[in-house]
Amino acid sequence: MEPIDIAKASKEAFEASQAVRHNERVDALSKIKDALRHNKATILEANKLDVQAAAEEVNAGRLSAPLLKRLDLTRSDKWDSMLQGISDVAALPDPNGKVSYASELDDGLRLHRVSCPIGVLLVIFESRPEVVVNIAALAIKSGNAAILKGGKESLKTTTALSDAIRSALSQTSLDKNYIQTVHSRGEISSLLELDKYIDLVIPRGSNALVSSIQQNSRIPVMGHADGLCTVFLDATANKEKAIRVVLDSKIDYPAACNAAEILLLHTDLPKEIWTSVATALLSHGVQLRCDAPSLALLASDPSVASLPTFSTHVLEANPSSDFTTEFLDTILAVHTTPSLSSAVSFINSHSSHHTDSIVTESESSASIFCRTVDSAGTFVNASTRFADGFRYGFGTEVGISTGRIHARGPVGLEGLVIYKYVLRSEGSAGHIVSEFGVGEGKRAFKHAPLGSDSIPAGFDIV
Amino acid sequence: MEPIDIAKASKEAFEASQAVRHNERVDALSKIKDALRHNKATILEANKLDVQAAAEEVNAGRLSAPLLKRLDLTRSDKWDSMLQGISDVAALPDPNGKVSYASELDDGLRLHRVSCPIGVLLVIFESRPEVVVNIAALAIKSGNAAILKGGKESLKTTTALSDAIRSALSQTSLDKNYIQTVHSRGEISSLLELDKYIDLVIPRGSNALVSSIQQNSRIPVMGHADGLCTVFLDATANKEKAIRVVLDSKIDYPAACNAAEILLLHTDLPKEIWTSVATALLSHGVQLRCDAPSLALLASDPSVASLPTFSTHVLEANPSSDFTTEFLDTILAVHTTPSLSSAVSFINSHSSHHTDSIVTESESSASIFCRTVDSAGTFVNASTRFADGFRYGFGTEVGISTGRIHARGPVGLEGLVIYKYVLRSEGSAGHIVSEFGVGEGKRAFKHAPLGSDSIPAGFDIV
Repeated sequence: MEPIDIAKASKEAFEASQAVRHNERVDALSKIKDALRHNKATILEANKLDVQAAAEEVNAGRLSAPLLKRLDLTRSDKWDSMLQGISDVAALPDPNGKVSYASELDDGLRLHRVSCPIGVLLVIFESRPEVVVNIAALAIKSGNAAILKGGKESLKTTTALSDAIRSALSQTSLDKNYIQTVHSRGEISSLLELDKYIDLVIPRGSNALVSSIQQNSRIPVMGHADGLCTVFLDATANKEKAIRVVLDSKIDYPAACNAAEILLLHTDLPKEIWTSVATALLSHGVQLRCDAPSLALLASDPSVASLPTFSTHVLEANPSSDFTTEFLDTILAVHTTPSLSSAVSFINSHSSHHTDSIVTESESSASIFCRTVDSAGTFVNASTRFADGFRYGFGTEVGISTGRIHARGPVGLEGLVIYKYVLRSEGSAGHIVSEFGVGEGKRAFKHAPLGSDSIPAGFDIV
Repeated sequence: MEPIDIAKASKEAFEASQAVRHNERVDALSKIKDALRHNKATILEANKLDVQAAAEEVNAGRLSAPLLKRLDLTRSDKWDSMLQGISDVAALPDPNGKVSYASELDDGLRLHRVSCPIGVLLVIFESRPEVVVNIAALAIKSGNAAILKGGKESLKTTTALSDAIRSALSQTSLDKNYIQTVHSRGEISSLLELDKYIDLVIPRGSNALVSSIQQNSRIPVMGHADGLCTVFLDATANKEKAIRVVLDSKIDYPAACNAAEILLLHTDLPKEIWTSVATALLSHGVQLRCDAPSLALLASDPSVASLPTFSTHVLEANPSSDFTTEFLDTILAVHTTPSLSSAVSFINSHSSHHTDSIVTESESSASIFCRTVDSAGTFVNASTRFADGFRYGFGTEVGISTGRIHARGPVGLEGLVIYKYVLRSEGSAGHIVSEFGVGEGKRAFKHAPLGSDSIPAGFDIV
């Protein structure tokens, strides 16, 4: 099919699905799980071919070894986790049909704002083929149709997974085109122009992938390009908290988007706290790229300067690049700043508005930091690594957004729904606006709040 | 200033304002009202010059007369309404600091999702100069900075209004650059590229204005280009409701985006209901552009065919244009459809996803219509004209959105906020993620819901 036909088929499948009840969606997820189990041999055979081809590319130096790991569906418990993930998503509460505003505008005229699916999602990801299953489950659960594109090195696997999903869908009330896959970059370029049919793009992958999509589509994009997180050690930072929070933020998983890349030091922070933090980081192999004041403090402390890694791991920062780079590695840029407000300004102008943390014993500093740092997550005495949908308790994570509208920070199923207004007149003659207003024969609106747990009659087919 | 400097100054003013308390924002609104009162003579003098210049353009046939009305600040109670609007916005509840998710992740580790401003708004409008005041009030109330551009014909007025606003701001905790105005299309073109500094574009005006902005910016746009609303008369429609709802939807204010442009008739609708609806519309001067079946029914009814306006106001519809045109006039396109599901498909493919209404006595039809019509408003036995922020009870209206993310339908102050996650550790050693998980020494997350009315300590400066 041409991209335009794929997009139209998705929109049609979405529209046709709007009368499908939640229990039927859950049933579809169960059928998909069965179909994957049933087709396990075929899928793993396809995966084997992808892995073999990728292994050759790795040997030839054209692909990285970690990519090979991500591709392989037989590694550790990946297959079982993938299937369990379907059940986990199925068991989450339905994000649709939730009433967030309910008002009686007039006697017998009731308005409800009810959550409902967005429409057609275009999800673009890289090497992990199981993302197909993960996203299909999220889309079906939330009532959105989806078009998926994986990396070219996982083509055979994603095709086999997608075939199993579509065969399962054909036994349900959902159209099999509810979940479609595309394979080429050309198709993606075309789809990114079809804002009439596609409602939201979710890129999951490298900075380059996300940036390129953000630059090339008018369709709203949910995601993040950079994860440039900061930990700020305030003047009143507690030493143990400082060491623990900085270490965890940096080394728990340096390649994650919620790992810290920048350490800010208040000039009034006791020198001994900084040297202890630095010593702990160095003992874990972290390279420190320091501004002049923070470097001078380390160099003047014999217990640090005498460390064997001092010369290799304590370097002068390049101010024009080190404070705007997502290292994704055991590297930390260190900057000294004279006040809380200068720290906040530095973060607002350098961070990617993802997650930033302050270590402080001052209630006032904590409060001002949380209020004035303009990021999706503002933390106090806690590792930036907590910024995650599962850790936040959402049960799943669609992605992490650094955008300012719709959804921000870790996004759960709620990020895949919007709402519509349902207005129902029970009046004997219907309701018309020309009867409202001031003057003879006109009446005023009542605007009486209704219990927000009342699902409107119009949604009883959910 | 160059556009880049305007945008940067806005972002700086926004960031600096995040510690400003709500009562100071309300106070700023009061100071703006005073400044406008104080500068009334200057402002009306500027407005007089704009009106005189526009009158010459109208006389020369280069501007439309209604534009002249919209420009004139001295007409009826426009000035007083403008000032009253500031007080009305000031009196609304603060949309910020609302907790929508609160969970104790672990003992002493509390997560709150708290509403907060989006950032910098770029608002582009056309001839009504009082929109400057209206938007400035909404922006200040909601904590967003704003850059405003009005039509060139209102330049002197908007400049005078803006000067008064900025002089008032200079006596408050807010930076005077919190509200800025620009005047040229060239500046707008440049600003639309500055997605680093501008977070949301709100165009208020013609279809052409909105479409052009949607096509030319990567910054999220909130608004609607078309308002193509439909009323569907189901087979079971009640005659009185049908006449009242169709008439009100069409003639209450034909130039509004929530006026109906399309009437759909179920083929099983009693002929007598359709001829009565048509007669009522014709008696109000509405032109009907009918498909063949609906036209045949009217032509075959002597009481309609004998009406003096039958030949001039009952026309054959042009199927390639009349069902996709926002007439904004006393014209209604009429289409016959054999079923509820065909009506829904017709609406989903022809309407602008704004507001659509069904007239029916069938609970099942009402329910399926509301669920499957993919529009911001789905109404039952009520006029499409109810789709309005004031009628919905929001106290104000930022605009009406036909987008599928963030805000949909009439948008109140809530549409100008997003949220951030505030995570605070009260633990004696801070909180780090490496202590959570499975295995020796690891613990599980608690994820205990917290009362959603608890404002986190980090937000006590609100």
